[in-house]
Amino acid sequence: MRLYDYARSSAAYRVRIALNLKGVDWEAVPVNLLEGAQRGEDYRALNPTGLVPSLDTGEGLLGQSLAIIEYLDERFPEPPLLPAGVFARARARALALQVACDIHPLNNLRVLQYLVRELGASEEQKLAWYHHWLQQGLAALERQLAGGASPFCCGEHPGLADLGLVPQLYNARRFGLDLAPYPRLIAIDATCQRLEAFAAAHPDHHQEV
Amino acid sequence: MRLYDYARSSAAYRVRIALNLKGVDWEAVPVNLLEGAQRGEDYRALNPTGLVPSLDTGEGLLGQSLAIIEYLDERFPEPPLLPAGVFARARARALALQVACDIHPLNNLRVLQYLVRELGASEEQKLAWYHHWLQQGLAALERQLAGGASPFCCGEHPGLADLGLVPQLYNARRFGLDLAPYPRLIAIDATCQRLEAFAAAHPDHHQEV
Repeated sequence: MRLYDYARSSAAYRVRIALNLKGVDWEAVPVNLLEGAQRGEDYRALNPTGLVPSLDTGEGLLGQSLAIIEYLDERFPEPPLLPAGVFARARARALALQVACDIHPLNNLRVLQYLVRELGASEEQKLAWYHHWLQQGLAALERQLAGGASPFCCGEHPGLADLGLVPQLYNARRFGLDLAPYPRLIAIDATCQRLEAFAAAHPDHHQEV
Repeated sequence: MRLYDYARSSAAYRVRIALNLKGVDWEAVPVNLLEGAQRGEDYRALNPTGLVPSLDTGEGLLGQSLAIIEYLDERFPEPPLLPAGVFARARARALALQVACDIHPLNNLRVLQYLVRELGASEEQKLAWYHHWLQQGLAALERQLAGGASPFCCGEHPGLADLGLVPQLYNARRFGLDLAPYPRLIAIDATCQRLEAFAAAHPDHHQEV
């Protein structure tokens, strides 16, 4: 499979981890977000949203990281990325959506660019915005997961919620957020980072185009 | 089931449609977003994100509209809200996520309040922001769905992608966006509005607390 990818895109990072966990044979097609390649007609002809990632599955192109991950989980059932049980599955999806809907869209590159270019936000205001939505979102996740003793967000195996969390914490560190208030999230992240599938997906191991 | 609801919340509106399509017996528990009830400790003790909707399923509380809809679809399989076929299902999820991740989070009440209170955005700048993300997102959806002849986003029956689209178009109208560039979306919306499950979920039929 071919992943239209950008190393530091946290949505693409989620999919890289999923591809690695599933043991899928894949290659990256770099899309340079800083040069705006995702907004060009070449890319939009593939994915009209102008956003990464996209996965060329061999049976069609898919956008939206969580849809791609659900696709991989249905197409390649082992190891499962969602828990057994209807309610447990919904809870795992909700945790992932808290990252994908409540944090990441607000801190996306295109949004930061809009704040600066259209609303004249200063660097300080941009960073305050970034930290604000991260803090709101991470505090909710910490409260929901605190007290749990499982190594991962939803049990004994890495899954969808971890694929949301780990790239988001990478972004949080990159933007200098104090992570001390989130000890449970940090512990889950550390457990994930020790797995080869997560380590190999890290932005530092992918080409900066 | 009990839905922690706000009439004009488009995320809650999605879930109301799903509950109606599934024929679930449910009641609304209004949460007054304008008064900030969702940020109060009473509500956060139920849902730490401080966001609506939440569904009290009887086996636990769930947040995140798309996770709730997937839960309902697994718990009550008829009528299905996702197409048959792994790739078709992923495509339907991607369309819904384009609304839930790429449009709605940017135009949420808490974000508009931040723009005004923290960044000093004028009413004009706030509206331009709102329209900008709507136009980006609706243009992508129109391009992906144009040329199709099915009555709904993904075939002959209403499903997850329609549950994303219809509330988003309600918001677009409410904020005065010109919808002429999106004839295919308008046609699908009109088809949906003729169904009782959609009509009964409309904000006008729900209590403004």
